[in-house]
Amino acid sequence: MNFHLDARLEQDTLPAGRLELCEIHLLNDARWPWLVLVPQRSDCSEIFDLNDDEQLQLARETALISKVLQKLTEAEKINTGALGNIVRQLHVHVIARFENDANWPGPVWGFGVAEPYSKVAASRLISQLQSEMKSHVF
Amino acid sequence: MNFHLDARLEQDTLPAGRLELCEIHLLNDARWPWLVLVPQRSDCSEIFDLNDDEQLQLARETALISKVLQKLTEAEKINTGALGNIVRQLHVHVIARFENDANWPGPVWGFGVAEPYSKVAASRLISQLQSEMKSHVF
Repeated sequence: MNFHLDARLEQDTLPAGRLELCEIHLLNDARWPWLVLVPQRSDCSEIFDLNDDEQLQLARETALISKVLQKLTEAEKINTGALGNIVRQLHVHVIARFENDANWPGPVWGFGVAEPYSKVAASRLISQLQSEMKSHVF
Repeated sequence: MNFHLDARLEQDTLPAGRLELCEIHLLNDARWPWLVLVPQRSDCSEIFDLNDDEQLQLARETALISKVLQKLTEAEKINTGALGNIVRQLHVHVIARFENDANWPGPVWGFGVAEPYSKVAASRLISQLQSEMKSHVF
């Protein structure tokens, strides 16, 4: 399979798992629990560039990751989005939002400066995510 | 069916059509061609609050509307998102983005002040959208 993660996504995220269609990455920004799903397909920038089956699989995996993140963080609201104005490789954001978070109720994209996790905090969160993902029948 | 459009969505949008699951509304902001899909289901605020079939139907309808908007506007990029931090009734945004638009490449949500369409311009755009929607096999 000729799939390579975009260099900017590689730089800004930490690997957090893999599902049937998507790689799962944790955005390295401790301001929000924020996951990025990247379908392992080349040359797709819009969701409708995927074939019909892949589009539905992406919807299933986005819902799964949303539920996992909601359960783990007890977020007030999950935000999902596929923008891609800067990084054109198709990717879907799933973000846990809280009423006291850095830019509530505004969007997270482009806001301020990322605050990287400590190695310990990132490792702990990824471990929790993977444990929660395994516990969901999929 | 006990579904009523949220008052804020009612105020900020113009009706633009209806699919099997979703009402389609045009955001009354001429800065971006911007559609909002609202599943006709009460008491849902997250996509995963829909049942599995409805989630997949929402994915199909979002892809359809994205393709229609892309074709009509020749947008550089389609942005989709389900945020709901302010309006909790589940709704999905589909926005046509251009490299010279009001906040490129940043997000549209919460940016500046809406610039309402003239009646003529809104009517023309909705008519074009509906014509394009009809031409897509669904």
